[in-house]
Amino acid sequence: MNIAFIGLGQMGRAMSGNLLKSHHTVTLFNRSRSKAEDLLAAGARWADTPAEAASEADVVFTMVSDDSALEEVTLGDPGLLNALPEGGIHVSCSTISPDTSRRLAAEHELKKTAYVACPVFGKPEVAEAGRLWLCQSGNPAAKERIRPLLDLIGQGVFDFGEDVGAANVVKLAGNFLIGCAIEAMAEAFTLGEKNGIDRKAMWEMFSSTLFAAPVYRNYGKMIAEEHYQPVGATPALIRKDMRLLLEVAQQSVTPMPFGNIVFQQLTATVAKNIGHIDWAGFAGEVSENAGLGKKR
Amino acid sequence: MNIAFIGLGQMGRAMSGNLLKSHHTVTLFNRSRSKAEDLLAAGARWADTPAEAASEADVVFTMVSDDSALEEVTLGDPGLLNALPEGGIHVSCSTISPDTSRRLAAEHELKKTAYVACPVFGKPEVAEAGRLWLCQSGNPAAKERIRPLLDLIGQGVFDFGEDVGAANVVKLAGNFLIGCAIEAMAEAFTLGEKNGIDRKAMWEMFSSTLFAAPVYRNYGKMIAEEHYQPVGATPALIRKDMRLLLEVAQQSVTPMPFGNIVFQQLTATVAKNIGHIDWAGFAGEVSENAGLGKKR
Amino acid sequence: MNIAFIGLGQMGRAMSGNLLKSHHTVTLFNRSRSKAEDLLAAGARWADTPAEAASEADVVFTMVSDDSALEEVTLGDPGLLNALPEGGIHVSCSTISPDTSRRLAAEHELKKTAYVACPVFGKPEVAEAGRLWLCQSGNPAAKERIRPLLDLIGQGVFDFGEDVGAANVVKLAGNFLIGCAIEAMAEAFTLGEKNGIDRKAMWEMFSSTLFAAPVYRNYGKMIAEEHYQPVGATPALIRKDMRLLLEVAQQSVTPMPFGNIVFQQLTATVAKNIGHIDWAGFAGEVSENAGLGKKR
Amino acid sequence: MNIAFIGLGQMGRAMSGNLLKSHHTVTLFNRSRSKAEDLLAAGARWADTPAEAASEADVVFTMVSDDSALEEVTLGDPGLLNALPEGGIHVSCSTISPDTSRRLAAEHELKKTAYVACPVFGKPEVAEAGRLWLCQSGNPAAKERIRPLLDLIGQGVFDFGEDVGAANVVKLAGNFLIGCAIEAMAEAFTLGEKNGIDRKAMWEMFSSTLFAAPVYRNYGKMIAEEHYQPVGATPALIRKDMRLLLEVAQQSVTPMPFGNIVFQQLTATVAKNIGHIDWAGFAGEVSENAGLGKKR
Repeated sequence: MNIAFIGLGQMGRAMSGNLLKSHHTVTLFNRSRSKAEDLLAAGARWADTPAEAASEADVVFTMVSDDSALEEVTLGDPGLLNALPEGGIHVSCSTISPDTSRRLAAEHELKKTAYVACPVFGKPEVAEAGRLWLCQSGNPAAKERIRPLLDLIGQGVFDFGEDVGAANVVKLAGNFLIGCAIEAMAEAFTLGEKNGIDRKAMWEMFSSTLFAAPVYRNYGKMIAEEHYQPVGATPALIRKDMRLLLEVAQQSVTPMPFGNIVFQQLTATVAKNIGHIDWAGFAGEVSENAGLGKKR
Repeated sequence: MNIAFIGLGQMGRAMSGNLLKSHHTVTLFNRSRSKAEDLLAAGARWADTPAEAASEADVVFTMVSDDSALEEVTLGDPGLLNALPEGGIHVSCSTISPDTSRRLAAEHELKKTAYVACPVFGKPEVAEAGRLWLCQSGNPAAKERIRPLLDLIGQGVFDFGEDVGAANVVKLAGNFLIGCAIEAMAEAFTLGEKNGIDRKAMWEMFSSTLFAAPVYRNYGKMIAEEHYQPVGATPALIRKDMRLLLEVAQQSVTPMPFGNIVFQQLTATVAKNIGHIDWAGFAGEVSENAGLGKKR
Repeated sequence: MNIAFIGLGQMGRAMSGNLLKSHHTVTLFNRSRSKAEDLLAAGARWADTPAEAASEADVVFTMVSDDSALEEVTLGDPGLLNALPEGGIHVSCSTISPDTSRRLAAEHELKKTAYVACPVFGKPEVAEAGRLWLCQSGNPAAKERIRPLLDLIGQGVFDFGEDVGAANVVKLAGNFLIGCAIEAMAEAFTLGEKNGIDRKAMWEMFSSTLFAAPVYRNYGKMIAEEHYQPVGATPALIRKDMRLLLEVAQQSVTPMPFGNIVFQQLTATVAKNIGHIDWAGFAGEVSENAGLGKKR
Repeated sequence: MNIAFIGLGQMGRAMSGNLLKSHHTVTLFNRSRSKAEDLLAAGARWADTPAEAASEADVVFTMVSDDSALEEVTLGDPGLLNALPEGGIHVSCSTISPDTSRRLAAEHELKKTAYVACPVFGKPEVAEAGRLWLCQSGNPAAKERIRPLLDLIGQGVFDFGEDVGAANVVKLAGNFLIGCAIEAMAEAFTLGEKNGIDRKAMWEMFSSTLFAAPVYRNYGKMIAEEHYQPVGATPALIRKDMRLLLEVAQQSVTPMPFGNIVFQQLTATVAKNIGHIDWAGFAGEVSENAGLGKKR
């Protein structure tokens, strides 16, 4: 298949690399070409615009930072929407608002192309290993056609039906669940520390028993050690996701007390210009409010 | 060894049953004898008072509902403290305040006996399978002596040092982490439901990927199905634990925003007289506040 | 002066009535003419469109329900923007987003007309008495020219400078402060009631001593009596205001824990379809969560 | 009347001074005598113990820092309980738990003396002016007898019936309402500041219109100016009051979301060792979390 891949951040590079390894033709577009060099050396092609990338594609993946970046590469001039051949499929992997997905899906339908929402879970190293978890929603036939490609970048795909916005809601809910686990561990470990208990000993116990799951294992280690590196995603980036979550909650008239607190902690972190750490570093709000001094 | 076991709720029956199976002599005390019948039939002995149970014991386990029940069986007349022979060890498995542990440990020291805090994690069926997770703190020599017994009731023991209150803090923190996971899932699944997404599909995805851990698997199923049975522990019982948590937080000057919300949700559940469900049923506060009607 | 007045809800009728009484020429527009009958009988003129109302006006007041209604009457076809004669002033009294004010002010500037943000505080009966409190921001010369008109509808005007969005932020902050007083009283009176203390006795004391101010006196009476009539503004309407507040907070990176709670209580009230009471009725969330049963 | 006054902090000195001015005999006790010098010079008598102070008293006032200090001067040896002549009245003005009042009232009844709960509202300068607001509960006959004395220290007395704990609940609720007003203003003014609006201009408007009440006027000025002097009460002292409030809420099964937040902000302030400012300074948590830097 001819594949276009638009958006070469850490995640996009890893995902397009896995598509490339399996001998598909992959054409890349990114705002700055320098991010593409390795992939071009490995056989990928370069396009100067999203439209050029999409113009001969069967499937175009997008993995960009937010709603407006996605709208730009899709609807902008020259965007992928007008260039993608009839029957083409846009696999939209970014973490965006469900309403943006619904609007773009409607635009694609008018052009006789399809739009599938397919956000992903996993840090960059998971993406490199082709072990992402994917959730998808949208047109059934399109989902069936792209499935072999999804299997190249992920270890499993969960389907949420035909409402194209559904997978986006699930992705936002997933980041929210991670944020809740971060805050919960931050409070638990801080309470421990203030009572003379080693943070790492608590983490070791919980993350290997009741909470033996990747989120508690990986984010928990950062929180236990209060060392928020490497940066999977910044506080500002995930704050954007939590803003989208709260917008969905507001539109659907759903109170989310934990959602508000996670958003608040990220907001305080961003307001204090603490930007060069992983977003799990909002855990530092908890220890600083307990008088334990700054470690970020 | 001669073992005494005081407190035959669901958890205590399962734990003392496992001790009995391994051919130790086990003497039981409980406020109502009827709970002991099966165990007596299987070879356990009966004592009419905590003192009588402890009077010939090497080790006395207590597993009672709260601080005052523990103080009653320990310090009451006739309590175990005065009866336990010199060198005896009190293994205190209840979920109680760290300060109660510290006070009782000091009393035991005066009598040349030892007190080990050893709270447990796991639902009654896990206790029956001898697969509890245990956390302990207190006198090192005593902890070493009881270790073979702990291995009969649990699948692993985590040590938190010599401050006898430490294990109690860890236990409270563990219940808090579970409470946070419950509230987080309640909000995520409710948001999904209000956006047309199946609660069980969300649970299936998260609990088999990023959150593939027993808490998300087991409590999550109840929350996804909104069916809070069977009852592992009631809302009122765990509300007591969260009260103890917040007392420790207050004494150690630690803000816990998530802790407050979990306590609030349990408080609302108790205030509305919703008592005959598992404590995970406080998740219903979230869906009811989102206008989804009552399922509890 | 020739005055146009657009938007004849409870507030708009009262305000335009006061302008009319002072012998200005007042031309009215409202989506449904029936609301205007009394004012027409008293000498006001009728216009069939916002444009017609504004076409000969020196000053056009708008008092509509939200941002999109204001954009419709201003920018729609036939809207007031294109009709208002050069030098004319748009006095925008609605509770809207500061960004909407800034955008409309820029449009007016292109047409050589002026836009002044002038939101108001006070219930309908206060508006009728010409005793509103007004806050304004925008072009200094325009503010000076409209001042005699503002004195006809209010008992005082507070100026917040030239950034036209400032008065809108102040208005949102004011509604937020009222919401906080409502929640605070709801919690205090509910705590009292659950401890055997008369809600009205508490209200009587606080609202005549430390909190002897209109908000505590008036909203407090509703909360003490748990009778949320008459309806000054519905929960849904003020929930919109709190949404705008939280948007401003989000854009300016400001955590607002109380803001989140007030929004949550209103959200729960709206989600439960409790719509025909004054917005102070969100206080019922507090008593219901304390198990006191429904009075709304 | 013979009056004893125990507890000569800022408040106690002002209150006993007003009793002294009206030609009653006033006998003082305080842990350190130095605080009494001015009053002794003005005609008060000194007692070396609470018992000595109470031994010839018709009425003994207590105004101490917390429950344990009150228990010490009342039940300690030599405490006032055993010394107060039959028929004597203990007027308890401290901010304490309702349960402490109930317990002490029962002790007094056994001795045929009476205990009236009579906590006060007002800063030290208000106390000096004899303009406190008082709330009382307890034995009706005792309340009638002390009324002329209360009129010497306050401008008004509000009665909350015969349950002696009621006035203590009202006092805690009052401090809670003040705390809520502080947090609400902190959020509103911080939102304003982050949007270019002068904090003092917002305070000026609100505290002279909808919120024209002493709490908004006085605490609001501190918050607007971010200058938390003079110190009426420290963060640590009022944190104790909020702890008592939350205990009453917990015992009576009442969720208090605002109560939790006020307690959290005070807890963070205390945890950071910010102690030499008025408790309104917890408002600084809000501006610091908004990235505005430290002014405390």
